[in-house]
Amino acid sequence: MRHFRLTLAYDGTGLVGWQRQPTGTSVQGLVEDVLAILDGQPVTVASAGRTDAGVHALGQVASFTLARDIAPATLVRALNFHLPPEVRALTAAEAPPDFHARFSARGKTYRYHIWTGGPLPPLMRSFAWFVPGPLDVAAMDAAARLLEGPHDFAAFQSVGTEVPDTRREILSSRAQVAPTAVGGLFDGLDAAAGQLVTYEVTGDGFLRHMVRAIAGTLVEIGLGRRPPIWIGDVLRSRDRAQAGRNAPPNGLALVRVRY
Amino acid sequence: MRHFRLTLAYDGTGLVGWQRQPTGTSVQGLVEDVLAILDGQPVTVASAGRTDAGVHALGQVASFTLARDIAPATLVRALNFHLPPEVRALTAAEAPPDFHARFSARGKTYRYHIWTGGPLPPLMRSFAWFVPGPLDVAAMDAAARLLEGPHDFAAFQSVGTEVPDTRREILSSRAQVAPTAVGGLFDGLDAAAGQLVTYEVTGDGFLRHMVRAIAGTLVEIGLGRRPPIWIGDVLRSRDRAQAGRNAPPNGLALVRVRY
Repeated sequence: MRHFRLTLAYDGTGLVGWQRQPTGTSVQGLVEDVLAILDGQPVTVASAGRTDAGVHALGQVASFTLARDIAPATLVRALNFHLPPEVRALTAAEAPPDFHARFSARGKTYRYHIWTGGPLPPLMRSFAWFVPGPLDVAAMDAAARLLEGPHDFAAFQSVGTEVPDTRREILSSRAQVAPTAVGGLFDGLDAAAGQLVTYEVTGDGFLRHMVRAIAGTLVEIGLGRRPPIWIGDVLRSRDRAQAGRNAPPNGLALVRVRY
Repeated sequence: MRHFRLTLAYDGTGLVGWQRQPTGTSVQGLVEDVLAILDGQPVTVASAGRTDAGVHALGQVASFTLARDIAPATLVRALNFHLPPEVRALTAAEAPPDFHARFSARGKTYRYHIWTGGPLPPLMRSFAWFVPGPLDVAAMDAAARLLEGPHDFAAFQSVGTEVPDTRREILSSRAQVAPTAVGGLFDGLDAAAGQLVTYEVTGDGFLRHMVRAIAGTLVEIGLGRRPPIWIGDVLRSRDRAQAGRNAPPNGLALVRVRY
């Protein structure tokens, strides 16, 4: 028996999310099906975050146990041979038997991408939300920082999927204009043609749709419809109806998990 | 009559390229069809570069004349209202009557994206060529610089599409590892998970498939199959059979055009 920790990246565009669903392609289903072939028996895979349909991952973490003796590097190669290109295994390592991708996680970082100020660059359309704007990013950042610390985030929890304990600790919550990487993927895009605004948040845990609800609320503030301090009122209300609408899933990516 | 200069970005993935073809969707066809509706008569559009099927653009430039009196900002809005999301009009400006997107161009910059050293990140797969590697990027850059200057590029011209004069001047030809943009789109990708190598080239003009043939040749050198100076032998041979194979179209983007 070998217990593994696996890092995964995926393009959530055509997927129903991490978790297996009655219909549609899930990351969990794809990974479990390949592992079942490799291990010769059903394998159950846990993940750090159960990303929703359309949400991406740059560094999702999964854990599982295999009966067969497979080296981590072989596991990565075998997974990438069988998985469709929208899901890639990045790294694998043996883990202690009590390692659990979700319960062992000490923190997770999500990033929400917003394109504003000009037409949405076509190559970005699967991973950025287009908000024509203009957006006051300084106001969004001021509001984002008000969420740092331990709080009751009930106001940012999806209706119908309530959990009993809605307290979470946000370690970092920041909005900024993403600098252009010289020589990088989108270098050369005319600055007058728009800008990429990112909201990056690290916390010990997240409620369902919490980051998308926060992103939607920050955009209300960025558009000047509400002042930054409004987010404090929303937080204290513990009422989901007070926050902004969920931002669309395609702008969101699970960036990394800390253990 | 108003003459226009238009900047366009597109995701070439599902397109047959810039130029109209007997079948399939072309950028020229999409833009001309919208302009014909706006102008009430057929409109012919010229472009700076006739990108191939699958090739992207961050800053393609087009020129055309309209009979109707349409303001540039209105033109951009109307185009983006009618065009599919894989093609976006970025900016429009009135231009002198003798402006021609191709013949007036003084230089064009293309960039080729290669992912190496780890599994291809799913969100990059439509705009990067996956070369497992390892790639010696310093050797690729040394070879790339040997192409700078005025040369006869017949060895990098597609067979079957020869033009009589194959001399072109390359102003800059560089390969490098793209730095990560902090807070940017792919920030957070584990550096151990691979790297993005870019080849960026600026010249006064390019032969058909020239950048892809150069990229394919640089990868031969990066993989250590040939030394950097080999590219000089290829260049002097003026024989297409001497160069590396064309790199795939999806890694290539027309970045900007200089007038």
